Amino acid sequence: MLRSHTCGELRLADAAKTVTLSGWVQTIRDKGKVLWIDLRDRYGITQLILEEGVSSAELFATARTLGREFVVQATGQVVERKAKNPNVPTGDIEVRPTALTVLNTANTPPFKIEDETDGGDDLRMKYRYLDLRRNPVRRNLELRHRMAQETRRYMDEQGFIEVETPVLIKSTPEGARDFVVPSRMNPGEFYALPQSPQTFKQLLMVSGFDRYFQIVKCFRDEDLRADRQPEFTQIDCEMSFVEQEDILVMFEGLVRQLFKTVKGIDLAEVPRMTYADAMRLYGSDKPDTRFGMQFVELTDMAKGKGFPVFDAADLVVGINVPGAAQYTRKQIDELTEWLKRPQIGAKGLIYARVNEDGSVKSSVDKFFSPEDLAGWATQFDAKPGDLILVLAGEADKTRKQLNELRLEMGTRLGLRNPDDYKVLWVLDFPLLEYGEEEQRWFAMHHPFTSPKPEDIPLLETNPGAVRANAYDMVINGTEVGGGSIRIFNKELQARMFSLLGFSDEEAKAQFGFLMDAFEFGAPPHGGIAFGFDRLTSLFGGADSIRDFIAFPKNNSGRDVMIDSPSTISDKQLDELKIKSVAEPK
Amino acid sequence: MLRSHTCGELRLADAAKTVTLSGWVQTIRDKGKVLWIDLRDRYGITQLILEEGVSSAELFATARTLGREFVVQATGQVVERKAKNPNVPTGDIEVRPTALTVLNTANTPPFKIEDETDGGDDLRMKYRYLDLRRNPVRRNLELRHRMAQETRRYMDEQGFIEVETPVLIKSTPEGARDFVVPSRMNPGEFYALPQSPQTFKQLLMVSGFDRYFQIVKCFRDEDLRADRQPEFTQIDCEMSFVEQEDILVMFEGLVRQLFKTVKGIDLAEVPRMTYADAMRLYGSDKPDTRFGMQFVELTDMAKGKGFPVFDAADLVVGINVPGAAQYTRKQIDELTEWLKRPQIGAKGLIYARVNEDGSVKSSVDKFFSPEDLAGWATQFDAKPGDLILVLAGEADKTRKQLNELRLEMGTRLGLRNPDDYKVLWVLDFPLLEYGEEEQRWFAMHHPFTSPKPEDIPLLETNPGAVRANAYDMVINGTEVGGGSIRIFNKELQARMFSLLGFSDEEAKAQFGFLMDAFEFGAPPHGGIAFGFDRLTSLFGGADSIRDFIAFPKNNSGRDVMIDSPSTISDKQLDELKIKSVAEPK
Repeated sequence: MLRSHTCGELRLADAAKTVTLSGWVQTIRDKGKVLWIDLRDRYGITQLILEEGVSSAELFATARTLGREFVVQATGQVVERKAKNPNVPTGDIEVRPTALTVLNTANTPPFKIEDETDGGDDLRMKYRYLDLRRNPVRRNLELRHRMAQETRRYMDEQGFIEVETPVLIKSTPEGARDFVVPSRMNPGEFYALPQSPQTFKQLLMVSGFDRYFQIVKCFRDEDLRADRQPEFTQIDCEMSFVEQEDILVMFEGLVRQLFKTVKGIDLAEVPRMTYADAMRLYGSDKPDTRFGMQFVELTDMAKGKGFPVFDAADLVVGINVPGAAQYTRKQIDELTEWLKRPQIGAKGLIYARVNEDGSVKSSVDKFFSPEDLAGWATQFDAKPGDLILVLAGEADKTRKQLNELRLEMGTRLGLRNPDDYKVLWVLDFPLLEYGEEEQRWFAMHHPFTSPKPEDIPLLETNPGAVRANAYDMVINGTEVGGGSIRIFNKELQARMFSLLGFSDEEAKAQFGFLMDAFEFGAPPHGGIAFGFDRLTSLFGGADSIRDFIAFPKNNSGRDVMIDSPSTISDKQLDELKIKSVAEPK
Repeated sequence: MLRSHTCGELRLADAAKTVTLSGWVQTIRDKGKVLWIDLRDRYGITQLILEEGVSSAELFATARTLGREFVVQATGQVVERKAKNPNVPTGDIEVRPTALTVLNTANTPPFKIEDETDGGDDLRMKYRYLDLRRNPVRRNLELRHRMAQETRRYMDEQGFIEVETPVLIKSTPEGARDFVVPSRMNPGEFYALPQSPQTFKQLLMVSGFDRYFQIVKCFRDEDLRADRQPEFTQIDCEMSFVEQEDILVMFEGLVRQLFKTVKGIDLAEVPRMTYADAMRLYGSDKPDTRFGMQFVELTDMAKGKGFPVFDAADLVVGINVPGAAQYTRKQIDELTEWLKRPQIGAKGLIYARVNEDGSVKSSVDKFFSPEDLAGWATQFDAKPGDLILVLAGEADKTRKQLNELRLEMGTRLGLRNPDDYKVLWVLDFPLLEYGEEEQRWFAMHHPFTSPKPEDIPLLETNPGAVRANAYDMVINGTEVGGGSIRIFNKELQARMFSLLGFSDEEAKAQFGFLMDAFEFGAPPHGGIAFGFDRLTSLFGGADSIRDFIAFPKNNSGRDVMIDSPSTISDKQLDELKIKSVAEPK
């Protein structure tokens, strides 16, 4: 090794040792007679010191050629520091080099390699290899590493076998768009990159593998929103001979172990909520349960009092914001404008303030008596100093709008601390959702999800009412994982495909191998997949997944560092028997 | 869970317990008054017993509807067996069901789900999910799982960080053919799938990650030989501030730990051999060192005796096959024919038999005196009863042919036991090899491999003589891993690209980001990659990697189970702005 120690490990007990360190020059302070160099590596920073009369003139000369981010090897004695730095683990010592070798020079980096950098997003992405030198980014990837190792350890301890499923698979029409790969050996044909190893993990259950897992790359060719990546990573799992309860217990265990080993947090028992309750109480299937402000319905109390907005509404529903009665008229107007933006689309906002004397002042005093409003306060369990915010309109839309408002108020009141973790299971999702545009039913989870046995009779008569044995894990308002008990019976699977509008031929062409497999003794089985990028970013207390991925792509799916995608040669296109028909740029 | 125990865990101590098992019907033996069912899952086989007078008629009726591979749940009491079966871990007990539920029926499988199956390769691949039910195949994948976990544990303990590098990268011209992925968001442009994460792991070193590893899928669009797959898995590693010796020690440690934990084998110290010695002594850069028969050169002794074949040869070289003097003339003729096949292409074979009395009988007695031949025996250290086999011709070709002959004789003599593991480092590979067809130099390892510092002056004057800081790990004659110390200096890298015939523009277009990165303080670094499929198959004592991959592709790159690759819709092609110009099938 070109070092005897890392830059993070020397302590007072090492004083008088002769050591060799290698690393990057973080800073140089040249005071003429004394010169300090902070040498950095992944493990920490160690101070080198050159002193006139002690260090040779040649050493000073070499040191004065160094610039930021030069790669240097230094050999010398560990000495106790006069002025100790308690903020750095190596702060009790410094190293007095007797030899200093420049292993490599460095151009001045385009932005500061410090915890707070002056580099903008684009520059940091172009020079991602420099951005990765910064402690916060590197720590994110160290966290990801730790989570991957702990995940595998837990799964291994629980008897799961890690099986690599193929990356070159087959395009399927259901779901998001596939990335495809032309086959040179089979001209005119294409592989597809997997959106998930769903069918393979089910086949592994048919094979009797009993417990499978994999931390695996998946691919989706969708237009990218701020926080989506064309390639992303899942913790993918499947178990046989299980019921929903077994999966919930097993994977609550995984998340518990991750919180314990990675964050040192003892997770409380994970509460469960039905999809119906989540929608009713939070207007969302991924409620943020770090704070209250559950929805309270006011429809019956609010109608028939002559206020046209309420009278025309399907639903009148609100939240009680504790201690927010001091909100001024101006603040409420701003909030109303915020709600009216096209992203949210509310028509207006009604408020009711509970004064210190218990009286209620509202924006609809004209229509509601003090007694009516006192009734509201009771309904909302609102105390003096609270602010009731109410929306009205079409039920689904209004719930969604109120969900946004609730989250906004949670943020404003500082109730969404990223270090406070609230984990939740959401259960009993609908099996199907109707696509108005396509005029057909779609699988809400995927076409292999099992309906609840008691709801099977409704499949053809009232498909929208059929609940699935499907579950999501939600942490702090973010869906981190989801799964279902699968259909393992060929007839039921065929009924499902037919409901989804697949002809027999289509189903056979796309999923024939799975349906065939189900004829040879498929066990009852179910599974779950966690979004590993998302889970890691939550553990890191961050909103964006991008800084938890070593080399992410931008919103156009480009890797600006390597400048990819790019054109390929005509020879390659010819060999693949494809032609590009894109307009020249 | 739909079981209280697995089919592999019940013992005599469990007698009298009421248990529930779930699994597949392996066999049914119906003797009228007694009926046995062997129930199988991943963990083992447990015998169920139904007895007239004890078990209900209804239970007998259900049992008689069962067929092979039906999925069954059985609840009943564990009882001691009358006739114990010492060959099965559960052989002391059986279960007397009081309830028997058919969880799923099964068609008759197209081949036997037994250790020795009657299914041919094609059938087994089409029904891979059934083939995976067979113990030997499942055990291979369990072995692979174990090796992956132990690999990650070792790397983690050694301070390596697992970083996922991207799958959608950029096509590069050097090396094998890339699989490409058209980009819908960037029409006319393509991603490529990585042949290895080489440049990314080097960038991670520039980023100061210090120690990186990943078990990662790689892709190569090459015509497939029997034992290659278009997607394969590597253990990919890189370290900073290291010299070759550090890498050898670190990864000898990995392989030692794998042998210890997975196979229970204490590996001896791994010997090292230069590439030059390997070629001279074995005619191969991946010698099988489970047995001797090292090459002995006879050129000087053999020439000038009037035997035209020797006189015209650049090299006369042979092996001594111990105890093979009983080989008949006919056997030697067969061996000669075997050597003359186009795959090997030898012109002929000369033998010399050392008789029990020490005299030597050869096929070239006409040209060589008894004293000459006694000299051969001394040269070969041949003992009475040994057989010397000699080839002659152009040096490189002759060595390759003799390598084949040596391996064949090792096999015939039973010296290549798959349970005997001999690990070897091969060092000091040439940096470059000359492509006669292309009339240019190619990187033997890859273009980032560092020449040995003492050979750098030869780069332009005698490129073929430059040795690389490159190393391969060889186990039992198979290369399982290889790597090198990398060039970390921009000027040297540019010199290398120029030697390989890249123009500045080409180098910049393809590797600009790496060369740019090297300007910002690249540390000395090096790494290695192991072929994980191959390593696993070696640990499994098998020749083919295919049965160590859950869902392999055939020699045409097809997955016959899912019938992929396949055509995609015109809508998909239109969206991707590409056109297929393949001839219709």
